Amino acid sequence: MANLLVDERDVKFALFEQLKVQDLCASDRFSGWNEKVLGLLLSEASKFAEKVLFPLNIEGDKVGARFEGGEVYSVPGTAEAYQSFVENGWLTACEEETLGGQGLPHVIKNAAHEMFFAANFPFMCYVNLTHDAAKLIELFGSEQQKSQYLHKMYGGEWLGTMALTEPAAGSDVGNIEFKATRNTDGTYSLVGQKIFITNGDSDVCENTVHMVLARIEGDPAGTKGLSIFIVPKFKINSDGSLGEANDVKCIGIEHKMGIKASPTTTMSFGEKGCCTGYLLGKEQDGIKIMFHMMNASRLEVGMWGQGTCSVSYMHALRYALERRQGQSIADPDSGQVPIIHHPDIRRTLLMMKSYIQGMRAMLYYCGYAMDRMAVVDNEEEKKKLQGIVDLLIPLCKAYPTEKGVEFASHAIQVYGGYGYTQEYPVEQFMRDSKVACIFEGTTGIQAMDLALRKIRMKKGQVFAEFLKDMDGMVNRAAELPGLKKHIEQFERTKSALAGIPAHLAEGAEANGVHYSYLKATPFLEAFGDVVVAWFLLWGAVVAHGQLEELFLKKKLEDAESRKSFIQKNTDAAFLDGKIRSAQFFIGNILPVTDGKIAALAWGDVSAWEAVDKSF
Amino acid sequence: MANLLVDERDVKFALFEQLKVQDLCASDRFSGWNEKVLGLLLSEASKFAEKVLFPLNIEGDKVGARFEGGEVYSVPGTAEAYQSFVENGWLTACEEETLGGQGLPHVIKNAAHEMFFAANFPFMCYVNLTHDAAKLIELFGSEQQKSQYLHKMYGGEWLGTMALTEPAAGSDVGNIEFKATRNTDGTYSLVGQKIFITNGDSDVCENTVHMVLARIEGDPAGTKGLSIFIVPKFKINSDGSLGEANDVKCIGIEHKMGIKASPTTTMSFGEKGCCTGYLLGKEQDGIKIMFHMMNASRLEVGMWGQGTCSVSYMHALRYALERRQGQSIADPDSGQVPIIHHPDIRRTLLMMKSYIQGMRAMLYYCGYAMDRMAVVDNEEEKKKLQGIVDLLIPLCKAYPTEKGVEFASHAIQVYGGYGYTQEYPVEQFMRDSKVACIFEGTTGIQAMDLALRKIRMKKGQVFAEFLKDMDGMVNRAAELPGLKKHIEQFERTKSALAGIPAHLAEGAEANGVHYSYLKATPFLEAFGDVVVAWFLLWGAVVAHGQLEELFLKKKLEDAESRKSFIQKNTDAAFLDGKIRSAQFFIGNILPVTDGKIAALAWGDVSAWEAVDKSF
Repeated sequence: MANLLVDERDVKFALFEQLKVQDLCASDRFSGWNEKVLGLLLSEASKFAEKVLFPLNIEGDKVGARFEGGEVYSVPGTAEAYQSFVENGWLTACEEETLGGQGLPHVIKNAAHEMFFAANFPFMCYVNLTHDAAKLIELFGSEQQKSQYLHKMYGGEWLGTMALTEPAAGSDVGNIEFKATRNTDGTYSLVGQKIFITNGDSDVCENTVHMVLARIEGDPAGTKGLSIFIVPKFKINSDGSLGEANDVKCIGIEHKMGIKASPTTTMSFGEKGCCTGYLLGKEQDGIKIMFHMMNASRLEVGMWGQGTCSVSYMHALRYALERRQGQSIADPDSGQVPIIHHPDIRRTLLMMKSYIQGMRAMLYYCGYAMDRMAVVDNEEEKKKLQGIVDLLIPLCKAYPTEKGVEFASHAIQVYGGYGYTQEYPVEQFMRDSKVACIFEGTTGIQAMDLALRKIRMKKGQVFAEFLKDMDGMVNRAAELPGLKKHIEQFERTKSALAGIPAHLAEGAEANGVHYSYLKATPFLEAFGDVVVAWFLLWGAVVAHGQLEELFLKKKLEDAESRKSFIQKNTDAAFLDGKIRSAQFFIGNILPVTDGKIAALAWGDVSAWEAVDKSF
Repeated sequence: MANLLVDERDVKFALFEQLKVQDLCASDRFSGWNEKVLGLLLSEASKFAEKVLFPLNIEGDKVGARFEGGEVYSVPGTAEAYQSFVENGWLTACEEETLGGQGLPHVIKNAAHEMFFAANFPFMCYVNLTHDAAKLIELFGSEQQKSQYLHKMYGGEWLGTMALTEPAAGSDVGNIEFKATRNTDGTYSLVGQKIFITNGDSDVCENTVHMVLARIEGDPAGTKGLSIFIVPKFKINSDGSLGEANDVKCIGIEHKMGIKASPTTTMSFGEKGCCTGYLLGKEQDGIKIMFHMMNASRLEVGMWGQGTCSVSYMHALRYALERRQGQSIADPDSGQVPIIHHPDIRRTLLMMKSYIQGMRAMLYYCGYAMDRMAVVDNEEEKKKLQGIVDLLIPLCKAYPTEKGVEFASHAIQVYGGYGYTQEYPVEQFMRDSKVACIFEGTTGIQAMDLALRKIRMKKGQVFAEFLKDMDGMVNRAAELPGLKKHIEQFERTKSALAGIPAHLAEGAEANGVHYSYLKATPFLEAFGDVVVAWFLLWGAVVAHGQLEELFLKKKLEDAESRKSFIQKNTDAAFLDGKIRSAQFFIGNILPVTDGKIAALAWGDVSAWEAVDKSF
């Protein structure tokens, strides 16, 4: 156990042994990379996460971002860490070299971000919001806008934000009331308030560039009438230097349950009537532009959920190995044993581990599919990959973030009373984790996206084919010893799941449109279980092959000597553990998934029929 | 909706309409009470909870208990609230009149405590620990001890604590190292440190009486060697006045995730060599005495879990009725609608409500069984009631506390981003809730108690009969219209559950003792689901009868006029809602329970077989 953030062995297993993402290096685009260098990069990321970001996070929770005298103060050390992060190339890891980037595959950035998120989410908000704001300018900006902003933002000199939410426009983004008026010089005058703006004001960099959703006077209601504007805190002079202040003011920050180091600001624009915005792209293209990065942003939030799961597990594991309480159930005279030897703790830990390993492969797979889209020539394949990404994104966002809250809670439980105190970080993990289920589209929104739109793509073909494509790996797994019952279970659950879209369609036909909405969240859960199980089976197949090779190399033929080798050898234990993860998940979780699917198909609509007064 | 703590209508339904606890008033012991007076008392409790305790709780989270200059300072207002509480008779609600009590049935106190816990758990710690410490003196103290302590403690002048935990003795209480030495005058000299002592020091009353578990020099290791001592902060003079300080010192308080108003202290006894303890009962009877109140204490913690579920639901419901976001799915031109009209929110709310109503009846039923034990003459019946109480206690403790964390999290989700801010109380509910899953025996400990001991009582008869006794109500429910499929589902799940004890025994036979330990927590969950479903069915039967009476009285014969009556009439809506709760739970939750039971029976033991290094 090298650090308490992520299991680096499993990160590399998922990337290079299971998914084989190094195959990307055969393409022109990623030809500068190879597995070894990518592995080294990840080791560097891990060190930075452990040495710099994690301590800053623990300190950040205690100190918090402050709002004083109209200014926001970040946690001491943030600006320095940000500069190191940028200097190490992580802000523009995937950008082209002409933009100062490294041209890294996204999936490697995803894996590094899992470590960074596990270490410090509030810090990563500076990174991701700046990156995403700059990316929008890169993709949709005029040449002048690009030359004004890109170098500064990608270079780590200016920060960026996304300013969408208003008091009456949260999940309901179409209700935005923020106003823009055309000026004669082609700029716009902006007036309005935005809430929940992460890093709306900051002392980390000298300037902050807001991407603001607003409605130009006279434009239609709803999302289609929205435009997006670049609004710098300080205007830019023609020579690129900072000019006058732009009538953008932070008027307060939220006091939150967690992520206390991340300032969540209320921003007022145009109080003095002189806030200038610069249109990005065309008028009324706001939502189209803003949602362009939705898949990538949602994958990132899912990766944070994954990081929370991982950091919670790693801490709980370390504690369970060290904390002694109670006697061994096998030997009551043992004296106090490490609590990992108590079956209920052991079950909890393997449960966490199995989810984490399965979700990790799922998230990387999604990122990898995005990379492959960029390198394949075949249009058919490209479309297929896009379909997989679109299908998986709501799952990748919602499922790991929900597990993040649960697993942080499990980690506290493993620590017992100590876990509830602020002497240990697990209670912070739980406080921090919850908001991931809300922003970038709540779990309910993701579930609706999945059950009402995504599984209907191409008349249901994308979903059906995705499930069908699992068969190849399942057939390979069927050849492994001791997995027969597991394969049967997996097939049973998958087949039941495959029938749900038709059931939802029939239910909606018979009951009304509310039917699918009522079932959306349970469906997302069940789908997630099956996908995670598949990735675990896949991992077990790969691990089994490697383990057999190890046995062969060490000339271990009988069961007993193999068993004792597994107990002593770290890599053999890891590989054997991959098989256990699959067994545990399929034997303990998938039967429950069967129940979830049966509940879906049960057809209850009482929540819809109950009258308001009865609640 | 009278307040945002508990649904008083359902409290009264569960007590007086479903369980008919007023039947207790026919016994000599409770003959001074009747339903009307009990109902009035509960209304008073509700008012006190709402007007005094809840605001103190919200303020208490902000201010917190403080440790300064060696002293603990409670949240301002606590001492005043405590005196009012005592004056209103709640501290000794169930005690005999000779002790200054009211002789109330325990189940009424339970119901009042649900409200008080929903309002303010940290405050209730002062109440419950004092009560429980005094109760031990009442039951096991010498006449002198009783005359010295009882009046003061029950009278609200002195507080009490329970001092068990030490750094190396948490769940593993047998490992206590705290030392006692016999003095020549019959007292004992105590030396040791205790941690996690709630209210170990306080400014709420002038004296604090600690009940301390310690080991007398030379006594055997393990729980059986422990004795229990009365250790007052200030010694008592022969005239009953306060004497000199007793070498008991608070050396710090924990900084915790929540319940910040409740000081969790580290206490040092005998630093100067002059801490005097007074033996309670006999030497080495410590555990027997301390565990005497275990059932009552565990039921209380379960009641806190219930209170958390309730206060979370009530807040989420109010918010969902008021907050407008998005259009109606039935009518896209509706403009923004209250979010309770969105199916996913509605499903979440009915899910919460159905659990809460079922758990409420379960918890009251357990308290009611305790009361009936005190009034029945028949020894056979008394034993049967004791069996039911013993069986249900681990469930009553663990199940609602786990739901408490989940439901507080759901409440945040209903509030969206606002729920994550400290502007609203739901994030506090979540932070506060988690520790209930840990103290008074963790969820894992409860599960082991249930799966390893309780279901084996009388060779499994207690468990089997408890399930069998459900049939009477199920048969009545089977006569209701529209519940056929629900009854079939319930019978199916109950029958599968009934087979699990035999499966566990076989599994342990085949695999070893660890088998049942591995399955304990999932078993507790599945058992809880079935019990909750049964109480909901029972509630539906009662509600259906009342609803039919209402229809008759109002001469409503056709379905349409009944439907519109339910929509307008508060009580009809409530009663119809009781039926929906049962339908929802059985149609959405029990199929998943089937899956949990199938997972139990699956027989996976990978968590036990996986080697330590593989985690």
